[in-house]
Amino acid sequence: MNAEKIPDIIITRLPVYLRALQRMADNGLKTTSSQELGERVRISAAQIRKDISQFGEFGKQGTGYSIEYLIDKLREILKVDRMWDVIIVGAGDVGHALARYQGFANCGFKVVMIFDNDKNKVGEKVGDFTVEDTAKLVEKVKSAGIKIAMLTIPASAAQEIADKLVEAGVKAILNYAPISLSVPKGVRVQHIDPATHLQRMTYYL
Amino acid sequence: MNAEKIPDIIITRLPVYLRALQRMADNGLKTTSSQELGERVRISAAQIRKDISQFGEFGKQGTGYSIEYLIDKLREILKVDRMWDVIIVGAGDVGHALARYQGFANCGFKVVMIFDNDKNKVGEKVGDFTVEDTAKLVEKVKSAGIKIAMLTIPASAAQEIADKLVEAGVKAILNYAPISLSVPKGVRVQHIDPATHLQRMTYYL
Repeated sequence: MNAEKIPDIIITRLPVYLRALQRMADNGLKTTSSQELGERVRISAAQIRKDISQFGEFGKQGTGYSIEYLIDKLREILKVDRMWDVIIVGAGDVGHALARYQGFANCGFKVVMIFDNDKNKVGEKVGDFTVEDTAKLVEKVKSAGIKIAMLTIPASAAQEIADKLVEAGVKAILNYAPISLSVPKGVRVQHIDPATHLQRMTYYL
Repeated sequence: MNAEKIPDIIITRLPVYLRALQRMADNGLKTTSSQELGERVRISAAQIRKDISQFGEFGKQGTGYSIEYLIDKLREILKVDRMWDVIIVGAGDVGHALARYQGFANCGFKVVMIFDNDKNKVGEKVGDFTVEDTAKLVEKVKSAGIKIAMLTIPASAAQEIADKLVEAGVKAILNYAPISLSVPKGVRVQHIDPATHLQRMTYYL
C-alpha cells in the first residue's frame, strides 16, 4: 500500500464509508454488502468494491464485509485509529460550535486550544477552553506538536493566520473562511462552504 | 442533457469547479485550461475535461475555456442562475453563523427565515431575522414554496424536523446534525460534518 498511488478522490470517499459503517454498527448490524453500503451513501456498489480493494481484500464473495473489521481497517488507513490534537482559530459563532461539537472524539480528534486575534475575545471562556491570543499561536502549537487546525476567522485575516499555522508546523487545515488559502506543498486544506454543498442539490430540483 | 444520466459524483464536483472559476474571474482572469483549473482544485485535467464534456462542448482545443462562459454554463446546469430562498432551522451557534454568512448571495441562495423549537429562542433577533416557532414551519414554508432548508439542531430533534420539512415540500436539506436523516425518494440530503472533512486529511499526515 503506497500513499502516493491512491487517487485523492478515493481517499475523499473513505470517511463517508466509515461514517455509514459506524452508524450500522451503532444499530447493531454485523455484516454488510457493497450494495447495502452503496444505498446508504448513494455511491454504486461497484465503485465501493473498487475503492476498498485498493487497500486489500477485506470482504468475502457471498458473505460481504464484517462491519467491525472494515471499520478497523478504514480507521487504520485514514490514521484515525489514534487521537489527533486539533486547534480552533477564531472564537466566533462557528468556533463556538466546533468547541462544543460532540462528534470529534469518536472520529479520532480532540480539540485542545482555541485562539482569536481579537483582544476582546482573548481570555473569554468557550466551553472548557479559555480563548488564547493568536500572537502566541506559533509558539504554543509548535511546542505541542499539533498538526491539525480549524480556521473559522473572517476571510480578510485567513491567509495571515494560515501562514502562522504553516510556520507552527500544521499540516492539515479545515478552512471555514470563504477564501482560497495559499499553502506550501505538503500542507492540505479542506474547505467547508455551505454554498457549495447547497449547489450539489439544486441540480436535482 | 438528461438529469438521470449524469452520475452524482460528477454533479458533486461541478460546484467546486464553479467556485474556483469565480475566484479566477474575481482575480481578473479571462481564460483557463483544464490543467490550470485542475491544479487549483486538485483534480486531474482529464477528469475535469471528462466531467465538463458531459454537458456539451464548452472549451476549445488550444485556447481552453472562457472563464465567464464556463461560469454561466455551470450556473445554468446547477440551476443557480436564479435565486433560491432558503430557511434555517436551529438558532444556535451554527444557525447564527449561517444567518450572517455573506457567501450565499453570490452563489444563488438567500436566507429568508429562521426557526427554532426552543420557546426561549423564538422572537430573538438573529441578524436581520426574528426567530420563528417550528410549530409554524410547515404552514409558512409551504405557503412560501421554499424548497431548501439548512438544519442546525441537535441530533435528537433532527429527524422530527426533517419530517416536517418534507411535509412542507422541502426537497433539499443541508444537515449539520450528526445523524443520518431518513427522507423519501426525491428529497436530497447533504451532510456537513467537520470530523469527516478532517479524516480526509489525516491519511496524508
